[in-house]
Amino acid sequence: MIFDTIAAKTTADGSSAINVIRVSGSDSFNIVNSVFKGPNLLKQKSHTVHYGHIQDKNNIIDEVMVSIYKSPKTFTREDVVEISCHGGNFIADEILKLLIAHGARMAQNGEFTKRAYLNGRLDLTEAESIMDLVNAKSHKQLQLANNQLKGDVKRLVDELQERILNIIANIEVNIDYPEYDDVLEMTNEILIPNIDILLNEIEQIIKESETGKLIRDGIKTVIVGKPNVGKSTLLNTLLKEDRAIVTDISGTTRDLIEADLNLDGVILKLIDTAGIRITKDVIENIGIHKTKKAIESADLILLVLNQSEELKDLDKELLELTKNKERIILGNKMDLGKKINLDNESIINISAKNKEGIEELSKAVKKLFIDEKILNSDRALLSNIRHIGKFKEVKQALLDAKKASINQIPIDFVEIDLRKAWANLGEITGQSSNEDLLDHLFSKFCLGK
Amino acid sequence: MIFDTIAAKTTADGSSAINVIRVSGSDSFNIVNSVFKGPNLLKQKSHTVHYGHIQDKNNIIDEVMVSIYKSPKTFTREDVVEISCHGGNFIADEILKLLIAHGARMAQNGEFTKRAYLNGRLDLTEAESIMDLVNAKSHKQLQLANNQLKGDVKRLVDELQERILNIIANIEVNIDYPEYDDVLEMTNEILIPNIDILLNEIEQIIKESETGKLIRDGIKTVIVGKPNVGKSTLLNTLLKEDRAIVTDISGTTRDLIEADLNLDGVILKLIDTAGIRITKDVIENIGIHKTKKAIESADLILLVLNQSEELKDLDKELLELTKNKERIILGNKMDLGKKINLDNESIINISAKNKEGIEELSKAVKKLFIDEKILNSDRALLSNIRHIGKFKEVKQALLDAKKASINQIPIDFVEIDLRKAWANLGEITGQSSNEDLLDHLFSKFCLGK
Repeated sequence: MIFDTIAAKTTADGSSAINVIRVSGSDSFNIVNSVFKGPNLLKQKSHTVHYGHIQDKNNIIDEVMVSIYKSPKTFTREDVVEISCHGGNFIADEILKLLIAHGARMAQNGEFTKRAYLNGRLDLTEAESIMDLVNAKSHKQLQLANNQLKGDVKRLVDELQERILNIIANIEVNIDYPEYDDVLEMTNEILIPNIDILLNEIEQIIKESETGKLIRDGIKTVIVGKPNVGKSTLLNTLLKEDRAIVTDISGTTRDLIEADLNLDGVILKLIDTAGIRITKDVIENIGIHKTKKAIESADLILLVLNQSEELKDLDKELLELTKNKERIILGNKMDLGKKINLDNESIINISAKNKEGIEELSKAVKKLFIDEKILNSDRALLSNIRHIGKFKEVKQALLDAKKASINQIPIDFVEIDLRKAWANLGEITGQSSNEDLLDHLFSKFCLGK
Repeated sequence: MIFDTIAAKTTADGSSAINVIRVSGSDSFNIVNSVFKGPNLLKQKSHTVHYGHIQDKNNIIDEVMVSIYKSPKTFTREDVVEISCHGGNFIADEILKLLIAHGARMAQNGEFTKRAYLNGRLDLTEAESIMDLVNAKSHKQLQLANNQLKGDVKRLVDELQERILNIIANIEVNIDYPEYDDVLEMTNEILIPNIDILLNEIEQIIKESETGKLIRDGIKTVIVGKPNVGKSTLLNTLLKEDRAIVTDISGTTRDLIEADLNLDGVILKLIDTAGIRITKDVIENIGIHKTKKAIESADLILLVLNQSEELKDLDKELLELTKNKERIILGNKMDLGKKINLDNESIINISAKNKEGIEELSKAVKKLFIDEKILNSDRALLSNIRHIGKFKEVKQALLDAKKASINQIPIDFVEIDLRKAWANLGEITGQSSNEDLLDHLFSKFCLGK
């Protein structure tokens, strides 16, 4: 496919030694060459790097290294130029402006990867894995993303599509070529156990994906507790740095403070909340509202109690508010004695201040959420919520097909549900359409000659 | 010179498409090659890019592009490898850990540039300009930094050194080779006007550097005013974005909020301060202390008054506190009528809320600080505080030499001050030592044969 030429900074904002600006499209060599004082880029070999200056007429913008990559062995399969310039946002912006003035267009978010997909270098799952790589904060996340980039999810989807396609093809042959008597006649009775095998497998994949999702996205963890119970101190202890401001003034934490904690390969997305209390202070009230919302959407609640004193009304309210969530109750200030006892609830004793009991907390979190067996399985582990959603649609389509078969609906009607399951799977990799299905059928069975 | 092999991420932290890790040193090819699955880097040409994977044994860390640069045509003049990996901090950290495990050392801040200097590719002023490029936020800053990178400051210094050296050499010849009667005898009477010419020039350079310094570092601008007078609203209006939280609660701005404003090529480093008031609130008190400190160190004060009401004690106190600083008095809330009149002080009427009067403020700032004549001069403009400091030392040494000459101190004693001036200049470019001076003398006059 031929697209216009796009440009964007590929490195992060902020102060750094260098930035890299990527240009992709059939005009990328010409555009960069026209603002580059150095060797003529049009005459250079692919995969080479050249020293020179980016100039706006005679005005030097920056001293740069320019790498050129000729189609098709490039990230987008188009001609690609990468300009390695000095860091800082200003220079990069000036160079981008200049490239745009010379005919490039500012790339949209993800547009280079989109082109890699549209030009057939990556399927959708592989493209999606790139963002997962970038966002990775643990070895397990990295492994998940690299497996996906290598095509693990694509292969899983392709294989399931293939199996569904075989059934569809069989039905089609029966309908269109009844005279082919060497082909098994697909009946509802034969179909049902075949669908069941697929259904079992897909249900297992969806179940396992819960672990994948938690690995990929992290466990959204909210720390709650009454003011001054030690929430911020706990957060700091867990993160081993002073991210939240800890003072002795109640309600100091005015806003949500978020931070990621790598717990032996599993990411807790920790959210510290304003101390819950009723107050006339506008800012505090916003904080309380956010806390309640945060509890609702959390995967895990860390409820901090001060075990050196009796339970207060607010403690009881928080216990009630979180009772239906996955939660771990922490008895803080263990160094000051113990006055709390909860029925049927285990409390982990900690001292956030003295950094005690943190190991036990870690173990409890992992016990609640991580299934190592699934992590080490050979089967591709879904982690992307879009993929999981599609698998759920596939499951529904197969359930519909099964129900139709049980009700003795004619087999060519059942086929509609199977086609839907096939198409849903294809949407995961971005490689299905009805045309594709026909292509596959024809290429596979050579029905038309 | 031969150093060990160093590695560091050269791109900024944060989420991005790619990161670049730079490795420099004689072992850089071997080290990267040992963790790279792809073509053998040892067999590739310089300035080429190669696709492959960074692997820890069989464990893929990332899909990467590797650029190789062979000594001496590289940034550091050493063998350099750049690994372009996926963005995000985790992957880059993993790759760095791996490189270090294979023999590289984590580079210190600026160590690549230091090597470029130590290996003779850059002088100190050129090396320093790189950070200025990265930090540039305006065209004028960029121009200043690019001129310095091109060697403008170096040439200015070299030329001054040369002129001082000629005088020193003349004195040396008189002393060591009194029989050379074709050489002018340097006397105090001849010396004084020569020093005066140099002094005039250096004083002019120092004077002009004030403009250079303000261009490079920005004008440290503090916005002060009593609580709720509209300081944060003004800041937001100037920045055309909602950086500071503006509410109706007095003392909302608890901490200093800093932001850079590009005012037609001149950067104002704006600092918003907590409203000055006496309070028992711990955090507020810290804010007040910071405000007073900020006023002391500011280049410019924007004092905001509410002109719709009479002056309050606090306004008067602030007027007093800032009277010896460069300041611009802003009469905010011009839309609500005018009740203020100051003797001998002009007030710029603004309405921060309605974005009125901002143009007048801009003009007043530029009038106070920017001399376009100096900016467009041919002479290199000093901007770096270290360079300016050294020029001040040079000036002092020349003043000492002049005074000694006037007092008829023997010429070989005056020479000591001249040598000092020469050495101070050399410290700017990092290219002077007594050995250098001797080298120069010998190479120039061929006295020793």
